[in-house]
Amino acid sequence: MQPFAPQHDDKFHEECGVVGLNNHDLASAMVALGLHALQHRGQEAAGIVSYDGHTYLSHHALGHVGENFHANSMVNTLKGYTAIGHTRYATSGETALRNVQPFFADFDFGGFALGHNGNLTNAYTLKRELVKRGCIFRSTSDTEVVIHLMAVARGHDPVARLIEALKQVEGAYSLVAVCAMGLIGVRDPHGVRPLCLGKVDDSYVLASETCALDIIGADFVRDIEPGEVILITKDGKITSQFPFTKADKKFCIFEYIYFARPDSTVEGHSVYEKRKNIGVQLAKEAPVAADIIVPVPDSGVPSAIGYSQASGVPFELGIIRNHYVGRTFIQPTSETRHHGVKMKHNANRRFIEGKRVVLVDDSIVRGTTSIKIVEMIRQAGAKEVHMRITSPPSKHSCYYGIDTPEPTELMAHSHSVEEMAKIIGVDSLAFISLEGLYRAMGETGRNDKNPQYCDACFSGDYAIRLTDRIANEGHTDLSYKHKASK
Amino acid sequence: MQPFAPQHDDKFHEECGVVGLNNHDLASAMVALGLHALQHRGQEAAGIVSYDGHTYLSHHALGHVGENFHANSMVNTLKGYTAIGHTRYATSGETALRNVQPFFADFDFGGFALGHNGNLTNAYTLKRELVKRGCIFRSTSDTEVVIHLMAVARGHDPVARLIEALKQVEGAYSLVAVCAMGLIGVRDPHGVRPLCLGKVDDSYVLASETCALDIIGADFVRDIEPGEVILITKDGKITSQFPFTKADKKFCIFEYIYFARPDSTVEGHSVYEKRKNIGVQLAKEAPVAADIIVPVPDSGVPSAIGYSQASGVPFELGIIRNHYVGRTFIQPTSETRHHGVKMKHNANRRFIEGKRVVLVDDSIVRGTTSIKIVEMIRQAGAKEVHMRITSPPSKHSCYYGIDTPEPTELMAHSHSVEEMAKIIGVDSLAFISLEGLYRAMGETGRNDKNPQYCDACFSGDYAIRLTDRIANEGHTDLSYKHKASK
Amino acid sequence: MQPFAPQHDDKFHEECGVVGLNNHDLASAMVALGLHALQHRGQEAAGIVSYDGHTYLSHHALGHVGENFHANSMVNTLKGYTAIGHTRYATSGETALRNVQPFFADFDFGGFALGHNGNLTNAYTLKRELVKRGCIFRSTSDTEVVIHLMAVARGHDPVARLIEALKQVEGAYSLVAVCAMGLIGVRDPHGVRPLCLGKVDDSYVLASETCALDIIGADFVRDIEPGEVILITKDGKITSQFPFTKADKKFCIFEYIYFARPDSTVEGHSVYEKRKNIGVQLAKEAPVAADIIVPVPDSGVPSAIGYSQASGVPFELGIIRNHYVGRTFIQPTSETRHHGVKMKHNANRRFIEGKRVVLVDDSIVRGTTSIKIVEMIRQAGAKEVHMRITSPPSKHSCYYGIDTPEPTELMAHSHSVEEMAKIIGVDSLAFISLEGLYRAMGETGRNDKNPQYCDACFSGDYAIRLTDRIANEGHTDLSYKHKASK
Amino acid sequence: MQPFAPQHDDKFHEECGVVGLNNHDLASAMVALGLHALQHRGQEAAGIVSYDGHTYLSHHALGHVGENFHANSMVNTLKGYTAIGHTRYATSGETALRNVQPFFADFDFGGFALGHNGNLTNAYTLKRELVKRGCIFRSTSDTEVVIHLMAVARGHDPVARLIEALKQVEGAYSLVAVCAMGLIGVRDPHGVRPLCLGKVDDSYVLASETCALDIIGADFVRDIEPGEVILITKDGKITSQFPFTKADKKFCIFEYIYFARPDSTVEGHSVYEKRKNIGVQLAKEAPVAADIIVPVPDSGVPSAIGYSQASGVPFELGIIRNHYVGRTFIQPTSETRHHGVKMKHNANRRFIEGKRVVLVDDSIVRGTTSIKIVEMIRQAGAKEVHMRITSPPSKHSCYYGIDTPEPTELMAHSHSVEEMAKIIGVDSLAFISLEGLYRAMGETGRNDKNPQYCDACFSGDYAIRLTDRIANEGHTDLSYKHKASK
Repeated sequence: MQPFAPQHDDKFHEECGVVGLNNHDLASAMVALGLHALQHRGQEAAGIVSYDGHTYLSHHALGHVGENFHANSMVNTLKGYTAIGHTRYATSGETALRNVQPFFADFDFGGFALGHNGNLTNAYTLKRELVKRGCIFRSTSDTEVVIHLMAVARGHDPVARLIEALKQVEGAYSLVAVCAMGLIGVRDPHGVRPLCLGKVDDSYVLASETCALDIIGADFVRDIEPGEVILITKDGKITSQFPFTKADKKFCIFEYIYFARPDSTVEGHSVYEKRKNIGVQLAKEAPVAADIIVPVPDSGVPSAIGYSQASGVPFELGIIRNHYVGRTFIQPTSETRHHGVKMKHNANRRFIEGKRVVLVDDSIVRGTTSIKIVEMIRQAGAKEVHMRITSPPSKHSCYYGIDTPEPTELMAHSHSVEEMAKIIGVDSLAFISLEGLYRAMGETGRNDKNPQYCDACFSGDYAIRLTDRIANEGHTDLSYKHKASK
Repeated sequence: MQPFAPQHDDKFHEECGVVGLNNHDLASAMVALGLHALQHRGQEAAGIVSYDGHTYLSHHALGHVGENFHANSMVNTLKGYTAIGHTRYATSGETALRNVQPFFADFDFGGFALGHNGNLTNAYTLKRELVKRGCIFRSTSDTEVVIHLMAVARGHDPVARLIEALKQVEGAYSLVAVCAMGLIGVRDPHGVRPLCLGKVDDSYVLASETCALDIIGADFVRDIEPGEVILITKDGKITSQFPFTKADKKFCIFEYIYFARPDSTVEGHSVYEKRKNIGVQLAKEAPVAADIIVPVPDSGVPSAIGYSQASGVPFELGIIRNHYVGRTFIQPTSETRHHGVKMKHNANRRFIEGKRVVLVDDSIVRGTTSIKIVEMIRQAGAKEVHMRITSPPSKHSCYYGIDTPEPTELMAHSHSVEEMAKIIGVDSLAFISLEGLYRAMGETGRNDKNPQYCDACFSGDYAIRLTDRIANEGHTDLSYKHKASK
Repeated sequence: MQPFAPQHDDKFHEECGVVGLNNHDLASAMVALGLHALQHRGQEAAGIVSYDGHTYLSHHALGHVGENFHANSMVNTLKGYTAIGHTRYATSGETALRNVQPFFADFDFGGFALGHNGNLTNAYTLKRELVKRGCIFRSTSDTEVVIHLMAVARGHDPVARLIEALKQVEGAYSLVAVCAMGLIGVRDPHGVRPLCLGKVDDSYVLASETCALDIIGADFVRDIEPGEVILITKDGKITSQFPFTKADKKFCIFEYIYFARPDSTVEGHSVYEKRKNIGVQLAKEAPVAADIIVPVPDSGVPSAIGYSQASGVPFELGIIRNHYVGRTFIQPTSETRHHGVKMKHNANRRFIEGKRVVLVDDSIVRGTTSIKIVEMIRQAGAKEVHMRITSPPSKHSCYYGIDTPEPTELMAHSHSVEEMAKIIGVDSLAFISLEGLYRAMGETGRNDKNPQYCDACFSGDYAIRLTDRIANEGHTDLSYKHKASK
Repeated sequence: MQPFAPQHDDKFHEECGVVGLNNHDLASAMVALGLHALQHRGQEAAGIVSYDGHTYLSHHALGHVGENFHANSMVNTLKGYTAIGHTRYATSGETALRNVQPFFADFDFGGFALGHNGNLTNAYTLKRELVKRGCIFRSTSDTEVVIHLMAVARGHDPVARLIEALKQVEGAYSLVAVCAMGLIGVRDPHGVRPLCLGKVDDSYVLASETCALDIIGADFVRDIEPGEVILITKDGKITSQFPFTKADKKFCIFEYIYFARPDSTVEGHSVYEKRKNIGVQLAKEAPVAADIIVPVPDSGVPSAIGYSQASGVPFELGIIRNHYVGRTFIQPTSETRHHGVKMKHNANRRFIEGKRVVLVDDSIVRGTTSIKIVEMIRQAGAKEVHMRITSPPSKHSCYYGIDTPEPTELMAHSHSVEEMAKIIGVDSLAFISLEGLYRAMGETGRNDKNPQYCDACFSGDYAIRLTDRIANEGHTDLSYKHKASK
């Protein structure tokens, strides 16, 4: 019996969060807290591997970190001074325990555990070759390719074997790993996904976002650089190398718009501040005469505050979110299905009646949720409903670690903004411009020749080769999904 | 293994929500949706009883509605055209299934199921007599007293038997019940707890708050009156009576400050609007030179918006709430315990640094949470921290259905505001005045001779007799807790 | 999902086993072991209540004792020096936790827990009166009537209240109970069900059968007498009284034929020895020329040994029992259902081929199992199949604690032995005579005026009044089943 | 929390049972029934893989077949016309789901699932090489070696790949497998473990024992030959080959003594008949003046019947077995631990008192159980206790698929029969002679130069090379246990 998870209905989904920590008596408990802070990056499953110098212990579970990792028992079951953890989003068919990371393997040099945020774009191509060589895969995850590439690599240095493996992969990856040599962190040459370094007492911490440092009281040290491989030994010595071919940085701009937590500082920028700036920019680009600014909770709130401050139109909670929808079995029957949106949101009816409302949301995917929310606001008696979106139209799929529908399912792929406004039922609809988005980020504008960020989902400019997608065109090999999630 | 629920650490807790619905093919599924909307009124357990004209079916479970009531299966297991439901908060020792409502009994006249929001103040006294008479109690809940009083009452009319029973009880109660005669709703003569009537298609709905009407698409009809007993027959005929001695209305003012959902309309007032008014009044009573207004999420948000709009100081999300804390097993060990507050909240560090911050919160109970939040804001680099509380100081316990600590545990019971400010560590602390609170409610002021609301937790003016508390003084009879929760 | 329990398909079922023990540090663990030894007396559910001088603790569970009562954890959860336990068979509709004994109630004099083996024959009549008086029943068990009768009885002496209650009931009962006064044991005036007293170290033990004494190393002291009420105080003082009107002893003869374990000594007789005697008697009454004697496992084994020794025909395991069928979810679909018998039994084909086989079984209920077993033996190649039954034909229902189908479902109720032989498909069929059964028990014959045992299921001579059955004739009150099982 | 499984305390354990079936609508349900009949060959875990021509579906579970495989749901979840199943014994440390068979792998030629009964004696040596080559193992089972050897073999014919893999392994194996080509059965060249072929309607069945054919109504066709590889295509065509170097047959003689079910016919012999013959031979070799022959249930029963018939001393059930001990949580605390034996067995005290008793058991492993049983019989009042064992002394470990303790733990390894008698506490002790055992099997005697059976556990004559054991001597490589169980 699968729980009904309405929050997945019509959103993009970040696919993973990773945490690693060394030299701490309570390493696994600390990692669990860190994963809890990164729960928004992947809510379907989580895993932790700990290492005590001799033995690797692990626990993997479907569901939220807080439901499956009990600090008291972890102290006994996941012993060790080093631990890495992973939290993951997965499309429903793939929600099997065998796909839950970190992955572990017993190599000739000893044990090695790995957690991966991102997506490899040539995993299928590599897997096909590895299977021919006699490798037996146990998961459908692209990350397992890295493990097998390490297995067939040479030498007895785990880090060298990892690097040899990674030199063969393409795509986006921020990795944490643990082996007898210590705690390892890696970011792909383009630095698509975030990874930062923190410190608490004598322990170093690797984490996808700074909010995972905050929860355990760690201080931010620095971001891991694109293309960097960092090794932290048990005694706290850090060695760093840049073994890959140098590439242009292409950090995912959507992390600022939607994925990262507003209290995180990512690549030197406060996410909350950037999100407010986007609201300010949007107010400039697409002003509208209105009575109230209403965020679609919760992602729209910071931008709506920015929009309100820039426009002078009051910010009000016109939509109330039910905080108990995380995981629910009130699976709508066909008769009750139309309550889906209302299970999560309710219009603040008495405050909306007769008002001109500006709804602020982060994106429009298929448009189904927007249609229902606008309908709810209209039923509550709004005089006018305007919608302002804090990202440019989402026209393309992401192959670098975000779960997006096929382009044909994206409303903006085949409809103009005017058509979308009509379908959604608003009096006006506006998206921030791509140029404006870069300005809100503090740039003077987008460098169209070599954009400062990865914005492929808006522009279609894919900076990293899509080997599997090309290889797969015209293929009907169904045994492997080229966009395996992690 | 009990989950760690940090959100209960230092808050008052509403104790119940009730829903009832008649004449609907999917009665139990609709009631489950209603309970889901009332989840904030009681998160520990929930139950539903359905009736199909012949058989009463029930399901009771510990935990959230959404985790235990599956709409698809309910259609098969909780059949019937009428259903009532109950969601409940309970102190840990009392979290047993036998205490989960609705209660059901087979009387000589047939079956009868009952759900209760509120607390009876003479239950212990009555129970002692009933046990002497040969009654066998199976729960520790005060509500079971009503069932036994009905059992020993005379006649074959269930409603008359219920009224005869209720004439003997004192305290606060909003009830929903179902029997062969139909769906029943009752409010105590003082109307301490809310109960409203709605309609969807040909079905009538009874619910604690209007947000439970909204989720199932029901229109608000009217509030049930204090002292009213309403019977809705299967064919939709409504009969109403007022069988109790008339009393002054004493609606709980804390419902507006904290308990009710901001999208609910309670006793004719928008909760969100009243909460904003309180913020406006507070800004007038206790202004302060500051850079940002920061709500303590989530209850402080509407008042903080009001305070910001009245003062002109910008409203900012300076504290980010982790939405995945509903139910977590990351039980802090003694070493990790200090992460407790951070599991729920994180300071938006980059936005707070160097700022003069006004924190807006709804109440101070023991003060423990406030201390930690202020410490977190200071660590984030705030220049000044001021705290504004949207209720008067909480000096007294509630005996009418809200779980409050003993008065000696209430910080305001034995400390002046100045002392509290020092302990909490703020540069200034202010509570709204009792007089100001009534003004924010739209009154010209508090009628001290006969206050318009129940404000006993602030004033100590208990309008309803506390029979058990008086009877119990000097007693050491431990087998019955005089403040049984529901 | 209900487990498939093929062993219930076509057997009579004893309904309960009880155990009580006082003055032991591990009272509840010892009681669990005792219940485990009595598992054959009731496999659907079990419960234990312990008492430590202040608090009553309990655990009730559906399923086998061994699956639900963990000795290590019981020491912590079911603390106390006195404990009573109950294991129970239940018809499927009644398998609800609320019906699992021991029952507990908080009286004005304190707590009282009660476990019952047997069945009351006027429970429905009493219940109807009690409900009219205002009693609220929570189970469908007849035993709860005793609890309510105690509640409305007078005085502060629990034993006196229990006796006052029991004076009003009719039927069969062997009871164990615990209250502040000590451990209590009772047998009804006719002594229909067994109950014995044992001793281990300084602890007294009450148990349905001696095999429950053996497992905990207790020595047999004596049987509790019909009509006896025994109280064992904490310091080991025993007081005995006979407060009921004296009656003739009517011990259930079926206990010897089938229910009791062969290693138990019941009412002074070795069950195994009596069962062998029955086989010997049967060989005399119904000899047959044959090659092998084959018991239907496991109940037929001792009688088959007796039959073999008396007849000189070799005893062989012609049917092998699969010992893993206790509880299985291999629920036959309609296509696999015909494997039902084979899941439990398999013919020892190579040993049966070409042989003249005498099958020895304990009884024929509906006949369905016998038909399948004979078919299996024939398919295995037997030349002749004869069946010998170690009880007289079962023509009547039991109302004293054994779950029997309605008489119309009993094959012997409406068929002659010749007809039965034909339907079952055997070359010959013979039952032991009622007279022969008494002789095998060591009597000179049956005293038809006042039989030495209760043999109502064979003779229809019901020694105890069937008040409910008479009251219920012509009734359609379905809310109470007059033969509630326990 | 691990269940207490007293039946494992002091017995040898067969390690697996396998079943395969093709061309049946209910293939997986039929396989589950077959596994249920083979439950005695492995009680810790079971798995089934089904194949519908396109997809492989699997379910693996710890525990009994009957508790985990629900025929009704299997029809929906384990669809397909072919299925194989495996039931397994495992030492406690190895009871992990990842070790539960059948194993499945996705090869370049497609899927392949494999179930194995037996043990490979060079698995560790092969694994070490495979890991060096880059293979990643996920289980600790020796069977996974076969999968990896197949992966690195060449060609696109699954059967040829399997044969190429098996040519590299040494040891004992009876295999069932399924792939797109059909259902496969294999027996190692020595034929150490059984495997037979049956037919029901148009389906062929492979099973470890004939009792698995009986339960699904299949007729026995023939045994698979040592060294035979059989392929059964979907349309029922059978092809057989003998690709391995020819070797002498060495069927495990212990299968007749203890492992196989008495209703099975193995390698042409009725197990029950052979077991009785052993009893007859034992009565001749080691007669004793006695009053009763008592089997230690349940394995001693057929031999005790043989002994009784040969000696004329009556066979009696002097020990009663509790049938509910399959799986119990009544984990003895140190105080209750001495009840361990009694939880399973109880002396039939009233029948043993004053008698000279001959106990018949199948083997003595560590001797601990024998000591307790003799003590129990003495406490029950036996005048003399003699013990007769239906196997020669167990002095050596098995490396071919039976879980045996290290030789130093075997009582017979370092004690004479006289010493054992003294330790166990019997008046006399005798084992059948090795020569006598062969005679009971129908041989004229043991061919010491080339014994007709594998009797290594008695004689120390290991017919198959013990490569891993030799390689491992002096080794401290703990990461791989050379006697991995399956």
